[in-house]
Amino acid sequence: MRALVIGAGGFVGGYLVDHLRECGDEVVGTTNLSTPIEGDCESHFLDITNGPEVGGLLQRLKPDVVYHLAGIAFVPEAESNFDKTLQVNVAGTANIARYCALSEGRTSLLFISSAEVYGHVQPSELPIRESNALRPANNYSLSKRMAELVVERYGRQGGLKCAIARPFNHIGPKQDSRFVASNFALQLARVARGLTPPVLEVGNLEARRDFSDVRDIVRGYRLIATTHQGVVNLGSGRAVSIEELLTTLIDISGCKVEIRQDPQRMRGPEVPELYGAIDHAREVCGWTPKISLRQSLEDTYRYWFDSLAAG
Amino acid sequence: MRALVIGAGGFVGGYLVDHLRECGDEVVGTTNLSTPIEGDCESHFLDITNGPEVGGLLQRLKPDVVYHLAGIAFVPEAESNFDKTLQVNVAGTANIARYCALSEGRTSLLFISSAEVYGHVQPSELPIRESNALRPANNYSLSKRMAELVVERYGRQGGLKCAIARPFNHIGPKQDSRFVASNFALQLARVARGLTPPVLEVGNLEARRDFSDVRDIVRGYRLIATTHQGVVNLGSGRAVSIEELLTTLIDISGCKVEIRQDPQRMRGPEVPELYGAIDHAREVCGWTPKISLRQSLEDTYRYWFDSLAAG
Repeated sequence: MRALVIGAGGFVGGYLVDHLRECGDEVVGTTNLSTPIEGDCESHFLDITNGPEVGGLLQRLKPDVVYHLAGIAFVPEAESNFDKTLQVNVAGTANIARYCALSEGRTSLLFISSAEVYGHVQPSELPIRESNALRPANNYSLSKRMAELVVERYGRQGGLKCAIARPFNHIGPKQDSRFVASNFALQLARVARGLTPPVLEVGNLEARRDFSDVRDIVRGYRLIATTHQGVVNLGSGRAVSIEELLTTLIDISGCKVEIRQDPQRMRGPEVPELYGAIDHAREVCGWTPKISLRQSLEDTYRYWFDSLAAG
Repeated sequence: MRALVIGAGGFVGGYLVDHLRECGDEVVGTTNLSTPIEGDCESHFLDITNGPEVGGLLQRLKPDVVYHLAGIAFVPEAESNFDKTLQVNVAGTANIARYCALSEGRTSLLFISSAEVYGHVQPSELPIRESNALRPANNYSLSKRMAELVVERYGRQGGLKCAIARPFNHIGPKQDSRFVASNFALQLARVARGLTPPVLEVGNLEARRDFSDVRDIVRGYRLIATTHQGVVNLGSGRAVSIEELLTTLIDISGCKVEIRQDPQRMRGPEVPELYGAIDHAREVCGWTPKISLRQSLEDTYRYWFDSLAAG
């Protein structure tokens, strides 16, 4: 099977490329980043906001499946520039969906959305199912829901074979340290290496979220793309507090640290608890997560610890 | 009450300005068109894609109510330029909603969406209620649904007092002749004035849609904006075929014409029949339509007939 991974240069893209190759797929990746794609695959530079460029590439490669992961993924970045977020996350997705639809059924599309589209979830609505109300609460989640609307449109009208994944938070080695688990792991690795005093800067620890390992998530992407059309949640099926992430990472590191709450990070979460129902993923494509949270955090910590030694 | 009409330079804007003034409101209008605003009001040039300009105007004027009608409203125009449609209809709406939210409850917002957001409606789903599924089917309706998501976001989060109107098709004197009723009326007025041979170019006549008079619709806008928060359909509550519009207009004109179907206009409608349930508008703000379809068509025809004499 020939797979095109759009947005292969990011954290998740690298893992997806590796997984697809392990499954025997022929993989081509695209990125608009100056850094090379991590995984071992043919790679192209692609700016998804350039429609003709998207169309040209799809026509040359004629992939069986397109995995679309490209876009602005960091919430504060989307918040500060809505115009650009619309252009990249929405119009960019429209370019991809439109040209996939033109393949008349040869190329199917998996759009990687986000569980953030559920937005303001009431406690009575937990666990979050695919049929839950969608109340996107920031520019990032708005743009993801908008892109879903675009994909759904081509699915109904243009004969596009498409599916939408809504992953909850996922973590793992190499994740950008702007994200919370990676951030704590990096701070602890620095302490362990003696590079900083044993003090950890943290924000609000009360929010409870649904964390999975990125390697489980990308396995889910291939299963959804190759077996199902529709919307599918991917997550752990349970909520863990940020405090529990922190405590587990401290335990893994073996460090004794002082926790210091940074007032800049202390804005309370808009939604105290979020976690997904993942029965649908199991039913439609047999997916269940395999990697425990502790394993995932150990690997993330180890990644930073080893990187610091190497640097 | 101080009202700001954003997009006052368009077909509907002119009628809204007139109606608000009749109600005793103090009215300011904005337009980004080179043509002046029709209604009698203080007017400003405003490009809604310019956030600081939007913010500056709102801060100076401190309106009680903002009626947001601005945007790309012609479906084929939106279809051919999605980037621009996103920028104007979505990011433009975000600018307005964000700055209204900053007023901390002083300024409420009525966003004029469209019944097009319902999109692919099944016959079993008629009449269309506000709670119906939303399956926007073209770039225009996608952009309207996306803008609704933005307004809803600020309504939940930013303390924005807001409402959303979803009008079905509306017609009346001065409407752009790219729209079907106005187009037929103009063609017939030309025939009646002896300017063209008695031949009418038409497209597919089978689609059944919900047509109201623009003057009823703008009356609804003020009622929704001043009494209710939420989503409200505005329409006639019944479906009329394009053929019936045509036959009524021919009857009004008194012309004997040959009907010629233009192959370029013959693409069948994606949805054969659409009409709204309008109970909610009656319940929440006492609105019902008053002007009959025949009256509306007579006025539209008379407008073109008189314009041609004057020209």
